[in-house]
Amino acid sequence: MKTLDQLFHHMLKDVYYAEKQILKALPKMAKKASSDDLREAFQHHLEETKGQVDRLEQVFAIIDRKPAGETCEAIKGLIDEGEEIMSESDTEEVLDAGLLAAAQAVEHYEIARYGTLVSWAKQLGHDDAAKLLQETLDQEHNADDTLNGLAENRLNKKAA
Amino acid sequence: MKTLDQLFHHMLKDVYYAEKQILKALPKMAKKASSDDLREAFQHHLEETKGQVDRLEQVFAIIDRKPAGETCEAIKGLIDEGEEIMSESDTEEVLDAGLLAAAQAVEHYEIARYGTLVSWAKQLGHDDAAKLLQETLDQEHNADDTLNGLAENRLNKKAA
Repeated sequence: MKTLDQLFHHMLKDVYYAEKQILKALPKMAKKASSDDLREAFQHHLEETKGQVDRLEQVFAIIDRKPAGETCEAIKGLIDEGEEIMSESDTEEVLDAGLLAAAQAVEHYEIARYGTLVSWAKQLGHDDAAKLLQETLDQEHNADDTLNGLAENRLNKKAA
Repeated sequence: MKTLDQLFHHMLKDVYYAEKQILKALPKMAKKASSDDLREAFQHHLEETKGQVDRLEQVFAIIDRKPAGETCEAIKGLIDEGEEIMSESDTEEVLDAGLLAAAQAVEHYEIARYGTLVSWAKQLGHDDAAKLLQETLDQEHNADDTLNGLAENRLNKKAA
């Protein structure tokens, strides 16, 4: 990879792959979640993720490339950890705590990646792409806030 | 895993493994970085990481367990991506941009994990452990701010 253009395209493919994996994982996580608010958070984020995939496809079009994914070991690892928790947890409390933690790790992965993509899009002068990616980044920050709120609620409920 | 205690211990081992991997990766990243500020950021974070490993060992002691790691595929994937960038980048610009992106992804992984560990430590009534983990979480947030600042500088330099 000799240019930032190539690096940008490479990471775009990584993140496209990641979003597709997340699209598959979220319905399973929603189905497993025992608390209503956690299930709703996953369902809501599933809808958002569909829009994020769509935005990535628009960014591929802007840089004149076909949408394509490239296997990304990091997101695979994060999702595998979530699935491990789903299969190993014996109680609802542990299951929901684990699902929440897995979702937060995925959110932070996306926050890091979209932050980088926004920055590179700007450096490359792809202002329209930067705007689309920033929209997704804002959604990811909101999703993380929602999950933090749920974690906080669990803590307060426990303390009460 | 039937209890939150067990889940906490499991994640502690995950993060301990992750920190040990980061301890190995950071000197390589510092050596490869071409800009002084990026190299200094990695060297500074290496020193911090040693303290973070030490704090994790204190938390193991609090829950009466021996410090031990457990392979965590997510951090392995993140670090492998960083190494891929180091071996494939042909120019200093691409190399530094890629190293910065890899470091930001690792920071966000840690922010997510320490956030979860703080929350679980509080739920379990391990207040001393929660304090130690919060100290590390604050450091990780600062490290992320530093990296964001470096990314911003690159953008401004490019724009100038």
